Amino acid sequence: MEISQLETPVAIVDLDRLEANITRLQNYLDEHGIANRPHIKTHKIPEIAHLQLRAGAIGITCQKLGEAEVMAQAGIEDIFLPYNIIGQSKLAHLVRLARRVRLSLTADSEFTLRGLSAAAYRERLELELLVEFDTGGQRCGVQSPQEAAGLARLITRLPGLRFAGLMTYPLNDRTGLFVRETKALLQGDGLAVERVSVGGTPCMWEAHHHPEISEYRAGMYIYGDRYTVQSGAVTLEDCALQVICTVVSRPTADRGILDGGSKTFSSDLLGLDGHGLILEYPEARIYSQSEEHGHVDFSRCERRPEIGERVTVIPNHCCVVSNLFNQMVGVRGDQVEVIWPVAARGALQ
Amino acid sequence: MEISQLETPVAIVDLDRLEANITRLQNYLDEHGIANRPHIKTHKIPEIAHLQLRAGAIGITCQKLGEAEVMAQAGIEDIFLPYNIIGQSKLAHLVRLARRVRLSLTADSEFTLRGLSAAAYRERLELELLVEFDTGGQRCGVQSPQEAAGLARLITRLPGLRFAGLMTYPLNDRTGLFVRETKALLQGDGLAVERVSVGGTPCMWEAHHHPEISEYRAGMYIYGDRYTVQSGAVTLEDCALQVICTVVSRPTADRGILDGGSKTFSSDLLGLDGHGLILEYPEARIYSQSEEHGHVDFSRCERRPEIGERVTVIPNHCCVVSNLFNQMVGVRGDQVEVIWPVAARGALQ
Repeated sequence: MEISQLETPVAIVDLDRLEANITRLQNYLDEHGIANRPHIKTHKIPEIAHLQLRAGAIGITCQKLGEAEVMAQAGIEDIFLPYNIIGQSKLAHLVRLARRVRLSLTADSEFTLRGLSAAAYRERLELELLVEFDTGGQRCGVQSPQEAAGLARLITRLPGLRFAGLMTYPLNDRTGLFVRETKALLQGDGLAVERVSVGGTPCMWEAHHHPEISEYRAGMYIYGDRYTVQSGAVTLEDCALQVICTVVSRPTADRGILDGGSKTFSSDLLGLDGHGLILEYPEARIYSQSEEHGHVDFSRCERRPEIGERVTVIPNHCCVVSNLFNQMVGVRGDQVEVIWPVAARGALQ
Repeated sequence: MEISQLETPVAIVDLDRLEANITRLQNYLDEHGIANRPHIKTHKIPEIAHLQLRAGAIGITCQKLGEAEVMAQAGIEDIFLPYNIIGQSKLAHLVRLARRVRLSLTADSEFTLRGLSAAAYRERLELELLVEFDTGGQRCGVQSPQEAAGLARLITRLPGLRFAGLMTYPLNDRTGLFVRETKALLQGDGLAVERVSVGGTPCMWEAHHHPEISEYRAGMYIYGDRYTVQSGAVTLEDCALQVICTVVSRPTADRGILDGGSKTFSSDLLGLDGHGLILEYPEARIYSQSEEHGHVDFSRCERRPEIGERVTVIPNHCCVVSNLFNQMVGVRGDQVEVIWPVAARGALQ
């Protein structure tokens, strides 16, 4: 089947670009002796995770227990879940999963650690724990090396847990110092920081400047999007994920309406202007969206589309787009090669 | 099962409120002699559509052909699809659907009309067409009564099509005038405007001030959200859709992190401040989101949550939230009564 025969809006993945993106990051991390543990939240597709592993990744990263379950069922054996898992039913699910795969986790509080410990100890399991720290992301994570060291020591005291290292997101100038200070604090306890896991596609090519990093989690690098292009981490020609839309209306000389809106692209702007880049009309601006319509200003374009014309959109943020589609269509040239269900989409937390 | 036993983040629907919302709008429209044709894009659940029909709705509105297909398969017999359907495979699908249900459509261009006509004529079908007009929404729709009348006349000339009326979104002060002017233009042709279909929850209680309206499409009224509360159309106590989250981290005295982010709530702001209202902490502000985390500033709250505490969030925009969940949990009091798959979620356009 040719791409032109697919109904729109459709999310396609250029397989040549996907494979090149996988190879490029793997080679870079190999060259610098950093383990690659890609984040599958971007694609949520087991077959792509297997491509990443076959290229040399040591395991994968998931953001939800449900994602990890889907990946485990697809035969993936080493999963990092950098999330505070809380609550009886989730903890019960977690230990069942930990029987089947090598599972490592993060925590940033005594509360999370005590829950994990109790669940693991009951099942005679040992869970590998990294302490999450915050150096400006203002999400989860302890605020100081002293706090990090305190949780590391608590992990060694709690049954069913093993201290494995530190984790943060995103990488920045304070990352190295935080790690060194925490290591210094733990030296007296004889506690080694085996893993230092850092993530983020925009800063991935900076990883080798931070010798503290032992493993890297990148997600968006696999698809690319307008945001990662703007960050300089990938080029427009690397963008593997594209959404093909049809122009369904031309109500005025300047305005055109696409058949993709906020339920196709999400409303993530990430500081960008407009809701995506139309490759055939780079001067056009998707100035607003309704749920199933993209509203485009073509006034700056010399040529303007006819109703019925198909256009190719590079979305602002690939992770949320793949979360909105039930399937991704893998293409090579103008031919459809594979249709992947987005198997871990909508999985329970 | 009790609500407290559900894993978070979970989207729950208060069935008492849902039923009251259905009844309230139906009674109002009945009182004013306006047909009710609710928009199911908000819930995408066949069983809820049937509740709306049993309460007195004359049919439903869908925004995508795939949604209409799911609803037809659930036994719904009268579907309005106010979308320019374009392309051979979609038109083929459309006429198959039109054999099974009473299907009406909109168009705002000769291109759309000619495609529909050819597809319908080939199958010896007659499709009911409304002309979409634009009075400020800046989405689809013809720009003048003259254009509307021109398309109406074209419909009468094209085989396989029947002119049924006019459609717009949203309702505003120019709606009535546009309809009256178009009717006047068509009077000489002997063309009656049977249906005038208008939509939008924020302005639904204004419908009776516009005698031109013959049927109303509201979607969000069934769930309610922060946006419709702010518009004054519903109250906070009417909001049937709520998302229960767990506080998974308290990294600083002011900051708390929820287990729901942009893949739970979307990033729709709709002019509101923050990404949702936490009922237990109305002074808190969800100031940003990552994909699976909500970042909350609790500094203005007297009391602050502990890690592990569950909170109830009224989302900014219910339609995009229900599009992100695979299921909705219907509750009555603190008990789970039904679990509905969001059957038309992710359906093809």
